[in-house]
Amino acid sequence: MIRIPTEKILKRHISGKLGISIKTPLKTKQDLSIAYTPGVAEVCKLVEKTPSLAYDYTIKGNSVAVVTDGSAVLGLGDIGPEAAMPVMEGKAILFKEFGGIDAYPVCLSTKNAKKIIEIVCAIAPGFGGINLEDISSPRCFIIEKALKKRLKIPVFHDDQHGTAIVVLAAIINSLKLAKKKASSVKVVINGAGAAGVAVTRILCRYGIKTILLCDRNGIICKSRKKGMNYAKIEILKYLAESPCGTLSDALQDADIFIGLSGPNLVTPEMIKRMKPNPIVFAMANPVPEIMPEEARKAGAFIIGTGRSDYPNQINNLLAFPGIFRGALDARAKQITEKMKIEAAKAIAAIIPEKKLCPDYVIPSPFNKAVAKAVAGAVKKVALSK
Amino acid sequence: MIRIPTEKILKRHISGKLGISIKTPLKTKQDLSIAYTPGVAEVCKLVEKTPSLAYDYTIKGNSVAVVTDGSAVLGLGDIGPEAAMPVMEGKAILFKEFGGIDAYPVCLSTKNAKKIIEIVCAIAPGFGGINLEDISSPRCFIIEKALKKRLKIPVFHDDQHGTAIVVLAAIINSLKLAKKKASSVKVVINGAGAAGVAVTRILCRYGIKTILLCDRNGIICKSRKKGMNYAKIEILKYLAESPCGTLSDALQDADIFIGLSGPNLVTPEMIKRMKPNPIVFAMANPVPEIMPEEARKAGAFIIGTGRSDYPNQINNLLAFPGIFRGALDARAKQITEKMKIEAAKAIAAIIPEKKLCPDYVIPSPFNKAVAKAVAGAVKKVALSK
Repeated sequence: MIRIPTEKILKRHISGKLGISIKTPLKTKQDLSIAYTPGVAEVCKLVEKTPSLAYDYTIKGNSVAVVTDGSAVLGLGDIGPEAAMPVMEGKAILFKEFGGIDAYPVCLSTKNAKKIIEIVCAIAPGFGGINLEDISSPRCFIIEKALKKRLKIPVFHDDQHGTAIVVLAAIINSLKLAKKKASSVKVVINGAGAAGVAVTRILCRYGIKTILLCDRNGIICKSRKKGMNYAKIEILKYLAESPCGTLSDALQDADIFIGLSGPNLVTPEMIKRMKPNPIVFAMANPVPEIMPEEARKAGAFIIGTGRSDYPNQINNLLAFPGIFRGALDARAKQITEKMKIEAAKAIAAIIPEKKLCPDYVIPSPFNKAVAKAVAGAVKKVALSK
Repeated sequence: MIRIPTEKILKRHISGKLGISIKTPLKTKQDLSIAYTPGVAEVCKLVEKTPSLAYDYTIKGNSVAVVTDGSAVLGLGDIGPEAAMPVMEGKAILFKEFGGIDAYPVCLSTKNAKKIIEIVCAIAPGFGGINLEDISSPRCFIIEKALKKRLKIPVFHDDQHGTAIVVLAAIINSLKLAKKKASSVKVVINGAGAAGVAVTRILCRYGIKTILLCDRNGIICKSRKKGMNYAKIEILKYLAESPCGTLSDALQDADIFIGLSGPNLVTPEMIKRMKPNPIVFAMANPVPEIMPEEARKAGAFIIGTGRSDYPNQINNLLAFPGIFRGALDARAKQITEKMKIEAAKAIAAIIPEKKLCPDYVIPSPFNKAVAKAVAGAVKKVALSK
């Protein structure tokens, strides 16, 4: 990976990466009387009478709050709300560039789950959707669940579902290439944080029947006591029954490996334990669980990473702009499980079958057709209910 | 006042009045690696180490949250957070147009003062300032006071201080024209909400010694029991001693009337009770306490209103963009009393003395020199400490 000089990075960040733009004229007395008092009162009165008109006459219909508490930012951990701002601003401009969505960063100075829930509920009236970001596991599950229950706008924890959708898209295409069926493959996931849990769930719902989930203490299974939490206990119902064991044990005869963990945790020997033509998505960033060159040498058939300098980059950017675009366009009140699976199918379908190859199972993050296709799929599900 | 057709107003509001703009390129893989992962991590690490760098490398240094609970929106009252959005968006674009500030509306679904304080504190890390807006009295006083104590960024309730600053500016110039001294005039204010209380305070600090404040129950005085609250009790120390009485009683021999109340509450007879050449600022909107034509007939020397279709429009727009511009430029931690008074002087000084006349005591809201002058005055006070 080519290192970009820090100076260049900082220069691009001076005074931030986003700003406010004005969409209505403000040059004459009449302009002012329309955009502000007294004219604006007409709009207020209409919205008061019919609150859903906020979608038509305010930014609500096109806006998403990018909410974090700064507790699990990138691989940097708990760096706090100020230090999380550059990432949330980055996310916000990606929303705009790829989804045409006006997103605004909201970085909170509390890590108390109950307070975060209260705060997000309180600020929700002005937003059309909530994108939760970089909130540490397992609090992220409680927060998202409570918000989904309490709010009538889409709530989406991207670290969970964005990743899950893009991984599923890559797997859909990989299975086509490998000529295997979802119902008969064995998948091993390493990393039981937000992403690992969400990937487990979506793969299960998609029809994959044999999933093993590992963390630093090995296979998550019923008989295990060490390092469990409520999220890991809850996920057991999606997992194949298994005795305790290591990641290496889990990989015996596996078809697919999904790494959402840390650098260099997978050895060539482990890859060799997998079934022939293994599919390996080693997504730890910036250093994957196994480097693509090594995985290839050990026999991997399809290899994906989180990096832009290797083929098959598993990048959430393929999902979240389209997910929210579709949800906002349909004024959906939730992002449902069906929407996520249809989104994954839409991403996979961007690549025509004849163009599929081991180095091209997932479209480029720059392919603007992706967000459009995802938005269409999500909107279709929303409107079909 | 010329009525603008509702259709025209609504058309200008379709999908809202503001949006997000992207300030950094997002066209190449490298652009993405700088604005988002992995490059952005460099910026995060720097801000984590030195949180004040958020002012340099994020939007914090140029951003203001426009916060309301929708409880006292324009003259419409408690219309709720969704219906408040058009006003807050209007405010946000005025911040941009006149102050170059990136402001974002935050409309809260709670009216609980304690919760509002918690929420604003929690969202503060991403903002360089907080503009409180249209929060009903007397809760607005508690909320602002608590936030000023807890936050290290400027907190400014515009309905209070924006109005107070512009009224003071108009009075400074009116006194010049009337050849009267602040220390010897009698001022009567009608309306003891957020604006009335703040105007009382700033005039007192400016050196006006005789102020009577009235509400719907008449003169606010020590012996009065009816319709008092803690804000009205606290303000007593700024007021001239007086027996109970009506607004008409208060106006006997007054030099200046300031209306921040409701339509048609002042009669020509009341104006006639005032000292010769009375100064009348009747700012109730859209219908003033007394119409300018009537006030003129009754002998008023200088007349101002809140309306754009009469001379001397007392418009907060003359204050808030410059106040925050100056505070952000100086990275001030508070808007101090001295800043407010210097801001008022700066607004007044925009009109050269030889151009002052009864119909021109306050600059036009479109005069872009005003925000610049106010910002300069505020910054100077901030840096002189």
